[in-house]
Amino acid sequence: MAKSEKYAVGVDLGGTNIKVGIVSESGRIISKTSVKTEAMSGPKVVIKNIKKGINEILKNNKRKISGIGIGAPGIVSTKKGTVQNPPNLPGWDEIELGAIIKKEFGLKVNVENDANAAAIGELIFGAGKKFESFVMVTLGTGVGGGIVFNHKIFRGEIGGAGEIGHVCIDPNGPRCNCGSTGCIEAYAGNHYIKESVKKDLHNHPSSKIWELIENDLEKVSPRVIQMAAELGDVYAKEFIHDLGIKLGVAFTSISNVLDISTFIIGGGVAGFGSPLFTTIKSTMVSRVLTPLKHRIKIVPAKLKNEAGILGASALVFYNT
Amino acid sequence: MAKSEKYAVGVDLGGTNIKVGIVSESGRIISKTSVKTEAMSGPKVVIKNIKKGINEILKNNKRKISGIGIGAPGIVSTKKGTVQNPPNLPGWDEIELGAIIKKEFGLKVNVENDANAAAIGELIFGAGKKFESFVMVTLGTGVGGGIVFNHKIFRGEIGGAGEIGHVCIDPNGPRCNCGSTGCIEAYAGNHYIKESVKKDLHNHPSSKIWELIENDLEKVSPRVIQMAAELGDVYAKEFIHDLGIKLGVAFTSISNVLDISTFIIGGGVAGFGSPLFTTIKSTMVSRVLTPLKHRIKIVPAKLKNEAGILGASALVFYNT
Repeated sequence: MAKSEKYAVGVDLGGTNIKVGIVSESGRIISKTSVKTEAMSGPKVVIKNIKKGINEILKNNKRKISGIGIGAPGIVSTKKGTVQNPPNLPGWDEIELGAIIKKEFGLKVNVENDANAAAIGELIFGAGKKFESFVMVTLGTGVGGGIVFNHKIFRGEIGGAGEIGHVCIDPNGPRCNCGSTGCIEAYAGNHYIKESVKKDLHNHPSSKIWELIENDLEKVSPRVIQMAAELGDVYAKEFIHDLGIKLGVAFTSISNVLDISTFIIGGGVAGFGSPLFTTIKSTMVSRVLTPLKHRIKIVPAKLKNEAGILGASALVFYNT
Repeated sequence: MAKSEKYAVGVDLGGTNIKVGIVSESGRIISKTSVKTEAMSGPKVVIKNIKKGINEILKNNKRKISGIGIGAPGIVSTKKGTVQNPPNLPGWDEIELGAIIKKEFGLKVNVENDANAAAIGELIFGAGKKFESFVMVTLGTGVGGGIVFNHKIFRGEIGGAGEIGHVCIDPNGPRCNCGSTGCIEAYAGNHYIKESVKKDLHNHPSSKIWELIENDLEKVSPRVIQMAAELGDVYAKEFIHDLGIKLGVAFTSISNVLDISTFIIGGGVAGFGSPLFTTIKSTMVSRVLTPLKHRIKIVPAKLKNEAGILGASALVFYNT
């Protein structure tokens, strides 16, 4: 197989780093590199850095490359290869990233929203292989989402679909980064989890978290909460349980609207693992409409650290 | 046009009545009738009544009929023509309604979920003509929904998609008929509106509603609230405003997930009209993600009393 296998370049355009890799058609990472995004210097510099990363990875490559896949934040037109208003990349308006990279390297270029690329990655290489339809959830800095329906990404009117982080579970809830209130991201985003525990920990003086953070609240992180929970800490366990309920409430709304029953969950916060997943599932089963109840599946994502590169390269092999 | 125009039979299978009509390809109702559903007598009797209604309408018909369209509650497989567990029709499990009616009348039969049929009706004959994608909302006994994306119904895994009445806006909210809590239907469904006003009206002794209902709380209805609001009643106006906010919160979640920006709103409660629509829109514009803000449209449905018959007949002319 190895001889006839195809290869692609996958580019994961993040707000801090641009990760670039050469990936085989079967999802094997051959080589990878990372360059700084320098987002604050504006699109010209960012594009220069994308080119730099791709050049670096192609320098010693002898394999035939089928194309370049790019996962980018913001509204992406997959047809036009444009990236519009990416939240963490100032000054972009609308940029023809696909055409620019194609011109530079003379290769086919597929651009896709990063959350959708993650969903396609799971669909082609990961936990989504055996499902025709699922909602991909990335619990990280934000709560990202991608909707796969009948093996295709559901994109909506202008490519903005899948923003499941901004499903509201309480209009009187906390302020969300998007400007609204009570979005599930305002409970489950990395930053909100930290802030919530930092505020609340004083009410739990015997929590094992104190020891793990050496009494320095700045060290609170989802990882620390997870460790405390694994040590049996009641507060940490309750925090994860409560988060699972909130995510279950949001996912129930999504499931009822889409009639999609499988949720694949990745990102750092998914590290809470089985206690989180079990609560999400039991919450959903108790809340969704009857025809969905026996179908609900909560599945951990398979692609971990290289999800971005893998998802981006999958765009080349699988044109949705 | 009239000479070469095509005709279909539209069947609106409701929990109380079965409405049947002959409808032209352009949405003109030629004739109509209504028979009792007798839902409690089980599927055999209901099917007999459907046949009775169709026979009645075909008795004196001389036009060539292209087919029969049926809008039915519950999970409908449009491919198989089956109707599964319709909420208001006891004892149905799964019934091959399409095949049964086709066998009886020797005509092409299209079966569709009633909320989806309403969406198709608006798409073909009504307010949806000029949109490629929209969410159809029917504010009636329940809160029904149908998702039109690129001129097609989005059906989900087994045909259950579009249950927008069961988007949760507050997990600690009132009990919903579906078994969950805080669904938008538990605020905006006809019955919930009545109960809410009946409970609350004693705190508003000067409300004009008292006069309109002649002090008989059993007479509270959306129509009465609307009349009071039109007379300038502050309580009635605030009730409608508050309902608009709640609907706006639910629709925001839907819009963020689907990236669909147009909502077409029908059903009796849509009679609240402009005050309701304005509040839904302003709530959504303030809450949706930035790329959606300038695109949000709230549009009244065009098909009124005959929406069911028209939507059902549209299934014959427009096979989604």
